[in-house]
Amino acid sequence: MKAEVLTIGDELLRGEIVDTNKSHLSQRLLELDIETRFHVTVADDPSDMREVFLRAAVRSDVILVSGGLGPTRDDLTIEVLAETFGRKLVLDEASLATIRAFFARFGREMAEINAKQAYFPEGAEVLPNPVGTAPGTMLEVPKPRGADIAGGGALPTSLFFCMPGVPRELYKMMEEQVMPRIAPRRQQQSVSRAALLRTFGIGESNLDELLRGVDLEPGVELGFRTAFPDNYVRPVARGADAAAADALLERSCRALRERLGPLCYGEGDAETLEAVTGALLRERKVRIAVAESCTGGLIGQRFTAIAGSSDYFLGGVIAYSNEAKQALLGVPAELLAEHGAVSEPVALAMAEGVRDRFGADLTVATTGISGPGGGTADKPVGLVFVALAHAGGSQAHRLLFPLDRERHRQITAQLAIDWMRRHLLGEVFELPRIGRKLS
Amino acid sequence: MKAEVLTIGDELLRGEIVDTNKSHLSQRLLELDIETRFHVTVADDPSDMREVFLRAAVRSDVILVSGGLGPTRDDLTIEVLAETFGRKLVLDEASLATIRAFFARFGREMAEINAKQAYFPEGAEVLPNPVGTAPGTMLEVPKPRGADIAGGGALPTSLFFCMPGVPRELYKMMEEQVMPRIAPRRQQQSVSRAALLRTFGIGESNLDELLRGVDLEPGVELGFRTAFPDNYVRPVARGADAAAADALLERSCRALRERLGPLCYGEGDAETLEAVTGALLRERKVRIAVAESCTGGLIGQRFTAIAGSSDYFLGGVIAYSNEAKQALLGVPAELLAEHGAVSEPVALAMAEGVRDRFGADLTVATTGISGPGGGTADKPVGLVFVALAHAGGSQAHRLLFPLDRERHRQITAQLAIDWMRRHLLGEVFELPRIGRKLS
Repeated sequence: MKAEVLTIGDELLRGEIVDTNKSHLSQRLLELDIETRFHVTVADDPSDMREVFLRAAVRSDVILVSGGLGPTRDDLTIEVLAETFGRKLVLDEASLATIRAFFARFGREMAEINAKQAYFPEGAEVLPNPVGTAPGTMLEVPKPRGADIAGGGALPTSLFFCMPGVPRELYKMMEEQVMPRIAPRRQQQSVSRAALLRTFGIGESNLDELLRGVDLEPGVELGFRTAFPDNYVRPVARGADAAAADALLERSCRALRERLGPLCYGEGDAETLEAVTGALLRERKVRIAVAESCTGGLIGQRFTAIAGSSDYFLGGVIAYSNEAKQALLGVPAELLAEHGAVSEPVALAMAEGVRDRFGADLTVATTGISGPGGGTADKPVGLVFVALAHAGGSQAHRLLFPLDRERHRQITAQLAIDWMRRHLLGEVFELPRIGRKLS
Repeated sequence: MKAEVLTIGDELLRGEIVDTNKSHLSQRLLELDIETRFHVTVADDPSDMREVFLRAAVRSDVILVSGGLGPTRDDLTIEVLAETFGRKLVLDEASLATIRAFFARFGREMAEINAKQAYFPEGAEVLPNPVGTAPGTMLEVPKPRGADIAGGGALPTSLFFCMPGVPRELYKMMEEQVMPRIAPRRQQQSVSRAALLRTFGIGESNLDELLRGVDLEPGVELGFRTAFPDNYVRPVARGADAAAADALLERSCRALRERLGPLCYGEGDAETLEAVTGALLRERKVRIAVAESCTGGLIGQRFTAIAGSSDYFLGGVIAYSNEAKQALLGVPAELLAEHGAVSEPVALAMAEGVRDRFGADLTVATTGISGPGGGTADKPVGLVFVALAHAGGSQAHRLLFPLDRERHRQITAQLAIDWMRRHLLGEVFELPRIGRKLS
């Protein structure tokens, strides 16, 4: 089964936005052990779209299409697909009712322009979209002439799936509507499964080296990916069926995690550092608060992005100015005058101050110079102090991350949360192979 | 002149990395007023590569290729390109010497495998790569049969440029070698310029409708793009030269902004809502603080992401728990008991409390139920109160956004910052066409 992914939209071809839908769709196909052979992006231009649809039908068996399902003039996917394969457009009353109901939920009336989204090529199957107005479409067409040439598709028909371009709508439709329709049509029944091991605190080449000694079974391949400030390891296991692939993957992950130790904090999309740390906090009934200067709310924002975080996250102080550090956290004026806001004593006082004011069990504080301005010879751009406080006392570390402002804030927030996680696990604080730990 | 961008590499098709080279190359082409019609990605597979090269030669005049120039077995671009168009591979002694010298600079000897990078299709022009070992290639071939069909390229030959996949090598080669070779071959000497108008507070279809009445000059086209919670308008102006295109674009932007009024808060990548609001705050010497419950630090994080925001951003309180609202913001316990944390009196007390404690000129507060849990019949998931306080008093609004947690937080933060912006401009608070304003 040969697969191709098409994305549609002028904005992609103009380079205005980076297209992440293609990689998502290809990753999902890989779970069915289907390799994507072509990614194609085409503008909202009927003649170019026709050319691409026809070529895809010739050379591929499954074609995933994303984008161009919106209500506006330049959304042409369904119209051009129908015309390319000689189908009429027909109104689906049920979809029209669903779209009207969608607007009604927001107390609004459907604009007439949205009725367009209820038309489909004759013979197509409608794929429901529970999170947006644009339904998807499955259309099966006979392979066009020319498909018998070398390099053509393997099956007698070509199967188009049209999905919305909005990522959250696309992801849901791919998962719930498209994958279950593709799976039974596959020729090969082998299955591959991939996992994502998330690590923080080690660079990509060191990670590669560290894992070289792990004895993996045949059928397992390792990939690496950087997602600043983390690095991911991606084992892929191939088996005769899902159970075999799952078991092989599980054994591989166990071996890899054993080697990685606390460098690996979680797996998959869901186990972000804040989610893993939050689960530990809930389990151990530890309540936290944060005092943020250079991270400016980033740590709080990450914890509170998780549903249910009010069980353990009490709150925080964004103490950006010196006045705020004094008034809201009780940092003594003398300390600020003597050591400056970016200093170990101030970081400690911030972590202790937020602990005492919120009555929290565990707190972190950040104070640093994210740049680009504000550096001096003594205290260069990139310098940061992170402190951790709990009932038993407090500690601070001085680090230097010579990075741009955005990445400086990101790595500082990640480090602060990771320190909380390691503290909860009884692991030592460690930042072995990125940045420079100065003391 | 019809352009196409090809990227080559298994890792792209597996979705392991997101391909940013394509958008870069298309952006550069646009500066020459050349629209990219197709983006294609293909695996390191000779038969698929051949199919893609041939198809590109049929339908396009300029084909930019990135990737597959490395020294390893799976780097096949040059080999397959030569074979597809019936050219022999020939050694370029000068390139071989350059590659050897490149290694020598690092005190290393060239591995024999790297000699492969000094072979080029007969008749090709070598493009030097001063920052890596892989030289680029320009190859001009006659259009293959089938190119005379509708939708084919416009010129009698097709021009391939092969460049390395490493972004910094690619960017330099595109700039220094490729663009100067494309520019003189363009048929049209026209130039196009695009702008991005950022709006908040209006849905995409309403925006389209609102702008229908704007009388734009010939040579201007409008595009639309959703970037939740914003919607962008993108005018593209085409002129005989850069000055004409710039002037036309400026007139169009002025007409569009006049129609949009305060719905449009900024232009381009740099003018985010927090950047525009921050500039107003600096100009008017207004110092702000924030009290965040449901947004949990998101507003503070956005302001502090901007370099120099310490000029106007004093800090904030993330008051996630009721205790924090009392202890850090002075919200009376009775108010919380009587009205609940998600209520207008509490939102007002939070905004006033943070104003008084930070000595700020202007503050916002958020308190709401982002979900998925925590809703009741009286106070459903999606409910949020936003309050604004200044020396002259305070105000609050009750809104309902029936969205998922993440987007609920995003739109609430955007609304709070936009209210600050409108307040500074003396505009009324307005949220006309998204969500439901309940009071």
